[in-house]
Amino acid sequence: MIQPRRTLSAAERFDWLRLIRTENVGPITFHRLLERFGSAGAALEALPDLARRGGRTKPLRIAAKADIDRELAANDRIGARLLCSCEPDYPEPMAALDDAPPVVSVLGHPHLLQRRAVALVGARNASMNGKKFAERLARELGEAGLLVVSGLARGIDTAAHAGALGSGTAAVVAGGADVVYPPENETLYRDIVQQGVILAESPVGTTPQARHFPRRNRLISGLSLGVLVVEAALRSGSLITARMALEQGREVMAVPGSPLDPRCQGTNNLLRQGAALVEGVDDVLRALDNLSPPTLRERQGDLFAQSRPAVPSDADLETARAVILENLGHTPVAIDELVRGCQLSAPVVLTVVLELELAGRVQRQPGNQVNLI
Amino acid sequence: MIQPRRTLSAAERFDWLRLIRTENVGPITFHRLLERFGSAGAALEALPDLARRGGRTKPLRIAAKADIDRELAANDRIGARLLCSCEPDYPEPMAALDDAPPVVSVLGHPHLLQRRAVALVGARNASMNGKKFAERLARELGEAGLLVVSGLARGIDTAAHAGALGSGTAAVVAGGADVVYPPENETLYRDIVQQGVILAESPVGTTPQARHFPRRNRLISGLSLGVLVVEAALRSGSLITARMALEQGREVMAVPGSPLDPRCQGTNNLLRQGAALVEGVDDVLRALDNLSPPTLRERQGDLFAQSRPAVPSDADLETARAVILENLGHTPVAIDELVRGCQLSAPVVLTVVLELELAGRVQRQPGNQVNLI
Repeated sequence: MIQPRRTLSAAERFDWLRLIRTENVGPITFHRLLERFGSAGAALEALPDLARRGGRTKPLRIAAKADIDRELAANDRIGARLLCSCEPDYPEPMAALDDAPPVVSVLGHPHLLQRRAVALVGARNASMNGKKFAERLARELGEAGLLVVSGLARGIDTAAHAGALGSGTAAVVAGGADVVYPPENETLYRDIVQQGVILAESPVGTTPQARHFPRRNRLISGLSLGVLVVEAALRSGSLITARMALEQGREVMAVPGSPLDPRCQGTNNLLRQGAALVEGVDDVLRALDNLSPPTLRERQGDLFAQSRPAVPSDADLETARAVILENLGHTPVAIDELVRGCQLSAPVVLTVVLELELAGRVQRQPGNQVNLI
Repeated sequence: MIQPRRTLSAAERFDWLRLIRTENVGPITFHRLLERFGSAGAALEALPDLARRGGRTKPLRIAAKADIDRELAANDRIGARLLCSCEPDYPEPMAALDDAPPVVSVLGHPHLLQRRAVALVGARNASMNGKKFAERLARELGEAGLLVVSGLARGIDTAAHAGALGSGTAAVVAGGADVVYPPENETLYRDIVQQGVILAESPVGTTPQARHFPRRNRLISGLSLGVLVVEAALRSGSLITARMALEQGREVMAVPGSPLDPRCQGTNNLLRQGAALVEGVDDVLRALDNLSPPTLRERQGDLFAQSRPAVPSDADLETARAVILENLGHTPVAIDELVRGCQLSAPVVLTVVLELELAGRVQRQPGNQVNLI
């Protein structure tokens, strides 16, 4: 069910934050729970029972109210605003993601997030020329009215933010909105807080860990109509962002480079695979020209119907649980396939998977897939 | 009518050379005359009458026999062999061109022309890296059994020939087979005569003029399964070769480069238009892998049927000539369109155009188009 866009009350926001901070609740599960129970508060009440039915023996640890109070206070203290995915100020291209973060913390000028956005990403060990190119292009894209999104990393990211600083730029960070990483970008970070916007999915104070970066990358592309990779070696983080952009149905663009420079192998490979070739601002504008921003209507994988789904009976769920556990393995399988393969209804499968997930017995993977843990 | 491939007698070769060296006879007209009259000798006899009917007032200057004797002797003197487009040693991909040169002069090792060939072309003012890349790639392509074709120019051409020298390379020159241009490539030229092959459409002793180069470029692509452009600015000669390759149905490939380098704008533009991206030898081999060499069967624009065409009556030609002249202008028009637009038969239109051309009143353009002079 697609939620109407509205601003939440303080109590609702508290429940949203508490639900997403609860053990075994990721963004997709969060949205399923909301669809199933109509509100975060109702979902929180239902959680222990769901987890138990999924086979959990010890009780599910719901986030403590005191912790949520502390997180809200920390946000206030650093001057950050919390945006929930149903709220009008939350950027719609990001809200359209299956795994849209239910709550993000935003520092600086959230209104910039309403602009049409393009991500510029690339190698941390970029060449002088690559950085020069990224900085100029970012400035020109900003002047053309686009929001330039990047990840505050060394190299291309830094150049992109610096170039677009005057017109507005968004840094999506892997840790908390208040945590500067890498530390050498302290000044740039402060400038972005003053003139741009910082967006974080992690709670205030979180030090970024390796596992946070791919999750953060999905938001760089998720905020944007398209992702431009300026320089990237094979198997680099920027290519993960490009892959996510593809999966999210966003445009992928790349700057060509010499085959003799390993920092261009990733971008050349993207071009070989059909990415739009970019030599300058006009190429980017042309590539994005006919794209309409992704909207909530396009959210994939909503197997529940438009209205609140019928709640399956306990007996049905009991039978279904056995069949589904038999069909799941350690290799991820798409939920759609599970529905077809088990000859069960979508609401039944989704409910069982939700319960198993809350019980910590299955894990969600990108592309709406699940596997046994 | 597709000619059977056979080696010509000395007398026939003399007639071929005499016909192609005759005023107003270009390669396409040559092939039409051969189709119409069955042999170069018969065409030579028919020429004065055809030109007169096309409206020529002063007699057509047929090449003098003494000049042909002199050209044959000059070829012998420099050790070049003449290959005619119907002969088995003439490379078949080139024979498949609508405007295949009826006679070429070949120095060095003609048997190399039987190999699967790939053209490497690019900027004369290439970068160090571009030249290094071209040389290495040419060597690897030669080692993979391909003949590397280029144009003996400065820069990329020179690097390509140098790289492939050990395994065999073909230089298609714009002037006579004995004329070294640019002069600084004297040593490379001698090496190619020793280890590779030089091919020329112009008579021995011809100093290359600006107008020769585009005609020469069609043979660089025409000899090859595909053309790889290594570095090229916008509006450069290499892009003409790439365009010709496209028109000839050959593969077009390009090496990506930095948008900051003007020498890469042409190649990046080719990539944007769908050229295969090349970072190394494997990319070229992959692009050419599934291509079968172009054959005579694929020659386009043969509007005459398989057998000798019926000769239109004089009365029919008279009427047609008036209609066609009325429909022709100074803007080139495709012969196919002329056939449709004038509601005349293809043999009639082709005959009238042939006559007008020999009379010096119309001119052939690329893509089987003609215009009034």
